[in-house]
Amino acid sequence: MSKGIAEVPGILCGTASCGLKGEGKPDILLVVTQKPAVFSAVFTENDIKSAPVKYSKGVRGRINGIVANSGNANACTGRQGLDDAKTMAELAGKLTGRGQPFLVASTGVIGEPLPMERVKAGIALAVKNLGRARGAEPATAIMTTDTFPKTAFVECSGYVIGGIAKGAGMIDPSMATMLCFVATDARISRSFLAESLKESVEESFNRITVDGDMSTNDCVFAISTGASTVSIDEKNHGEFTENLKLLLNQLAYQIVRDGEGATKVLKVVVRGARSPKQAKAVARKVALSPLVKTAVFGGDPNWGRVAAVAGSAKTGIDEERLEISIGDFLLFSGKPVPYSRKHIESYMKTAREIAITLNLNLGSAEWEYLTCDLTYEYVRINAEYTT
Amino acid sequence: MSKGIAEVPGILCGTASCGLKGEGKPDILLVVTQKPAVFSAVFTENDIKSAPVKYSKGVRGRINGIVANSGNANACTGRQGLDDAKTMAELAGKLTGRGQPFLVASTGVIGEPLPMERVKAGIALAVKNLGRARGAEPATAIMTTDTFPKTAFVECSGYVIGGIAKGAGMIDPSMATMLCFVATDARISRSFLAESLKESVEESFNRITVDGDMSTNDCVFAISTGASTVSIDEKNHGEFTENLKLLLNQLAYQIVRDGEGATKVLKVVVRGARSPKQAKAVARKVALSPLVKTAVFGGDPNWGRVAAVAGSAKTGIDEERLEISIGDFLLFSGKPVPYSRKHIESYMKTAREIAITLNLNLGSAEWEYLTCDLTYEYVRINAEYTT
Repeated sequence: MSKGIAEVPGILCGTASCGLKGEGKPDILLVVTQKPAVFSAVFTENDIKSAPVKYSKGVRGRINGIVANSGNANACTGRQGLDDAKTMAELAGKLTGRGQPFLVASTGVIGEPLPMERVKAGIALAVKNLGRARGAEPATAIMTTDTFPKTAFVECSGYVIGGIAKGAGMIDPSMATMLCFVATDARISRSFLAESLKESVEESFNRITVDGDMSTNDCVFAISTGASTVSIDEKNHGEFTENLKLLLNQLAYQIVRDGEGATKVLKVVVRGARSPKQAKAVARKVALSPLVKTAVFGGDPNWGRVAAVAGSAKTGIDEERLEISIGDFLLFSGKPVPYSRKHIESYMKTAREIAITLNLNLGSAEWEYLTCDLTYEYVRINAEYTT
Repeated sequence: MSKGIAEVPGILCGTASCGLKGEGKPDILLVVTQKPAVFSAVFTENDIKSAPVKYSKGVRGRINGIVANSGNANACTGRQGLDDAKTMAELAGKLTGRGQPFLVASTGVIGEPLPMERVKAGIALAVKNLGRARGAEPATAIMTTDTFPKTAFVECSGYVIGGIAKGAGMIDPSMATMLCFVATDARISRSFLAESLKESVEESFNRITVDGDMSTNDCVFAISTGASTVSIDEKNHGEFTENLKLLLNQLAYQIVRDGEGATKVLKVVVRGARSPKQAKAVARKVALSPLVKTAVFGGDPNWGRVAAVAGSAKTGIDEERLEISIGDFLLFSGKPVPYSRKHIESYMKTAREIAITLNLNLGSAEWEYLTCDLTYEYVRINAEYTT
């Protein structure tokens, strides 16, 4: 069985189905901490924020858990939406006997009011089921267009970190979109946890993209139950951050792999940049390019598109120093490099993950983006999807 | 017969086929001015510039014409590419007996050396054909993935402006990409022409996008032959600019309509912004969103995607003031507005041009972007295209 957030000591999970996603599919998730827990959160930077994001941004102190639903984003729903998010938190606190505060998260269709009678019944049922949802089950309750539940679990020196995520690639703000809940039993201060989370998110979720859009509902919640005997201090804080980064990267990779219609993961690596900012700008431009993404889908080693797109980032690339490789094949080095079309096409058609590496040869900064290819199936899913 | 650049008094065009695009298709265009002519040019801002762009950027004084080829971009071709661009200009000057300078433009596949023996033969033939290419024929000689030649012609008070363009939507840097040659018989100074061109490009070609990528070869050349008796001075400069804008917008519209795989033109209008910068940022984000573009293809009035994408521009949109319309249907005004799904779906499925309007209600600035939908055919063209 895959381990996730429910396997972290001090965490209990319960799920329920209340009909938000159709008969019988779990759509309510309750995560409860056995004791009030230190937490940290990262939210979407979208101007348009969902009601649960607005609500959760106001939560202070230690939390008693998280209440979440899928199938409805509770976004663009006005004052009623805010009231509904608050009601979800209050009901979770009341029915678990734990009181406030609870964090709230929603994911699904934008612009429709939550059917609160159903949601209330679902929360009540999830409370009854507390402790029964294990492994991938909590992740299943927050799926929307995801084709598989996303979990990760890391055993560290004396403590563990476990997490779940949802998202078919931050790609569909209409099925809004990326959620990640992660917990550790390590004892850690709020400021240390916030620092670790910020750095880890920057180097995991902020390095993946499917179509460059940002949802109204994205959030990452990190909880410390403190159930282990290990305390995170100056000495092991760096190690904790590395472990958290590892875990979030496992979840981020699963989101890209589950990108809508994706057949391949595309890793864009920019090396030799003058600054991380330049490396990021170039990598992002390449990772977002429909031309590069369709070429990867078609198995076409079209380095000319990569060169043109990289240059269009307008960061001051020097054509004469630029090197472009696909996999281990160097295709451009200031000028076209002869290559075996047969070998590279065979690589592009058979590998599950395609690497495109650009060496700018201007400095020593690097950046990496993970994305996926652009396929007929992406167009089908998004053209035929109807609210 | 459609009129274009060849119908401007003082301009002679000749085309030829030399096998760059396959047997019998015209791929060389020669535009010659009967007298040395004032010109102005706008070039791609891509870091990676094609050899003809580098060459033409160095041209000063009055020009004797333009020599262009399609089927090969002469980009990422190093020193040899620069020599080849220079040879094209020199040969055009020599064979027409007009001498230098000539502007040079190329469009087509990136990263392959120009087959110069063919190109030279093509230029020689185009010189022999000078004056014979009329109407849409000059535009045909610069087509790549275009499905129709793009021409426009405006009759003004005592002078005319005519132009041709190519581009299946600035979308394929591998078939690099947008060219536009425009001429007028009005007498105009270089500085007035440059001013008019800059303003007109900003409000035409810089407001269209198909996939946000910028090619290595984009350029717009404007020529004044001075063959008419009208001089452009302080008094009619504004009128000239408006006429040029009209002409470039006609060409820009044709490029979007010919966007790869496009079935519909999408017009994104942002009103009520605090500044043109905000209006442009929001409009551009919506116009580039694969989610919005696939929804338009599918005829889905998915305003939630529009709201989420607009917010992701992070310009400080206020959800409570935001209004979103598709066509004449107001769908969101701080909160969802009830609408007839049947009527709006009928509009989206039958109209050739779909308008999405966002009123931010924060100020009075506006911006507009033209783009097209994202279809299976776009994926097919770009996944199956092989250099």
